[in-house]
Amino acid sequence: MATLTNRQIRLAARPQGFPKPSDFRLASEPVPAIADGQLLVRVAYLSVDPYMRGRMSDAKSYVKPIPIDGVMGGFAVGKVVESRHPSFAAGSYVGADFGWQEYAVSDGRGLRTIDPEVAPLTTALGVLGMTGMTAYFGLLHVGEAKAGQTVVVSGAAGAVGSVVGQIAKIKGCKVIGSAGTDDKVAHLTGEVGFDAAFNYKTHPDVTAKLRELAPDGVIPLLNVHARVTVCGQISQYNLEKPEFGPRWLHQLIVKRARFEGMLISDFAAHFPEALRDLTGWYREGKLKPGEQVAPGGIEAAPAAFIGMLNGQNLGKQLVQISDA
Amino acid sequence: MATLTNRQIRLAARPQGFPKPSDFRLASEPVPAIADGQLLVRVAYLSVDPYMRGRMSDAKSYVKPIPIDGVMGGFAVGKVVESRHPSFAAGSYVGADFGWQEYAVSDGRGLRTIDPEVAPLTTALGVLGMTGMTAYFGLLHVGEAKAGQTVVVSGAAGAVGSVVGQIAKIKGCKVIGSAGTDDKVAHLTGEVGFDAAFNYKTHPDVTAKLRELAPDGVIPLLNVHARVTVCGQISQYNLEKPEFGPRWLHQLIVKRARFEGMLISDFAAHFPEALRDLTGWYREGKLKPGEQVAPGGIEAAPAAFIGMLNGQNLGKQLVQISDA
Repeated sequence: MATLTNRQIRLAARPQGFPKPSDFRLASEPVPAIADGQLLVRVAYLSVDPYMRGRMSDAKSYVKPIPIDGVMGGFAVGKVVESRHPSFAAGSYVGADFGWQEYAVSDGRGLRTIDPEVAPLTTALGVLGMTGMTAYFGLLHVGEAKAGQTVVVSGAAGAVGSVVGQIAKIKGCKVIGSAGTDDKVAHLTGEVGFDAAFNYKTHPDVTAKLRELAPDGVIPLLNVHARVTVCGQISQYNLEKPEFGPRWLHQLIVKRARFEGMLISDFAAHFPEALRDLTGWYREGKLKPGEQVAPGGIEAAPAAFIGMLNGQNLGKQLVQISDA
Repeated sequence: MATLTNRQIRLAARPQGFPKPSDFRLASEPVPAIADGQLLVRVAYLSVDPYMRGRMSDAKSYVKPIPIDGVMGGFAVGKVVESRHPSFAAGSYVGADFGWQEYAVSDGRGLRTIDPEVAPLTTALGVLGMTGMTAYFGLLHVGEAKAGQTVVVSGAAGAVGSVVGQIAKIKGCKVIGSAGTDDKVAHLTGEVGFDAAFNYKTHPDVTAKLRELAPDGVIPLLNVHARVTVCGQISQYNLEKPEFGPRWLHQLIVKRARFEGMLISDFAAHFPEALRDLTGWYREGKLKPGEQVAPGGIEAAPAAFIGMLNGQNLGKQLVQISDA
């Protein structure tokens, strides 16, 4: 067997503010031979996500920093091309944090088996992966959304936001989305099926718009005992200093509202039930995957990542690394 | 019986920013004769509280605006001087929202009977009244404080803050207070019994100080699953526009923390159990009343209220209206 080359994207420099192409570098190394108990995966699709910006920084966060010249981390799915592991046969499909590279060696820990007969491989990174789980637990467990209530989703055209809106519709809620371009707004009220959406960057009076769309109350017209789930803050990730905004604590008091942060990892024990629900809705056609796949292989990953941070994606942003 | 005169403080003008003496006016009217089913109370002590600033404004809030030339509202305690009500005998003591006036007529609704043998009359406005209840439910129900945890109290030398700290100590927590003068800091670590306190206005590095006092984590070093109860925002009440502050949502995510607003009225069903606990702690000497009583009668109420908004009080600010 000829020696395979593994091309990777490594962290060249810690970004100052917004990441730029020179913060990444393309590297190559030979694919190592696998030992007993290991398997080799050829990566097919890579997911690029906002949290990766945190890993590029060495500030304390909930994710460990990637060392300089380390391979960028990221969830991916691929095909087992060689296996000396009893549980994973060559030819099967798996997903894990394989990083930004064409090949990954695994000992099977943290590996998820994917059945492409159930749903396309890419969905394991989107609606049937962390994206879908975050939407599911954020909306239903932390947010406690119930039929008849109004759900307002900011960042609604992003990967998690568009799934939150769809699950909220499945659960019988009225769903309003805010997004930053008119195309996204049209996408939300069209294909994705939101009840209403608006462009928060250009709308002259967002409060009045929300009052019109959600006469029963919403932020800053929070209802009594409203719940606000905080699961991501992409607009803040590239700032050198935290932005300032209005103090909302008084609204919290008046409305006895709850703002609660979440990390999807805290819900690991409940992943199976979420995946069962999400898969069911997907197969019934109620939950659309909403993916955007960048072609161009591993070299295309930095641009896809930077574009996603700039809000250029509709739904889940993936990069195709090889043919599945 | 000679006609009694009831002197009152009425709202003369809606304050622009900080209230000033000319926003109030002293008025007099005859005490009306009471009808069957009514009683007449001579007010002994009046409580002045931050929420009253909200009632002076006509902005939408959780309290109804006082009309221009209306009597200022406020909880007070006093003696029943005449009664045609079967449940309240002349000579007994009662508390309710009697307003800023010397006499009040009541039909008995919302009236609380106070036994001055159990605790001094003033405590019914402080540790054994709304102040104590707010501290109790905010700390134990919303904040879910448990033995061994660290409780940080801002506005710690105020009426609610100093009771929060004392209850937290009773429950076995470590208690850290922040306040705006060195005298308040000394009061907290001395008489009130906080473990530590600091002056947030003059300390050169509050984050470092908190890191030192609470090495196990605190705001902005929030612990994972930290709870922050938001029950009052006195520094914001006199602003014409909301102040801006750092965006904290990212900290909420990283720490899966919860900020939750509360209003004491939502806990009405549980008042009896809270009052039982608070009274027990008071009688065991574990909970100090921490009151500051302004002399000078009803005319002194505006200055006492303005002083309290300026943070001149230690603990609960009351005004003595008459001899009890």
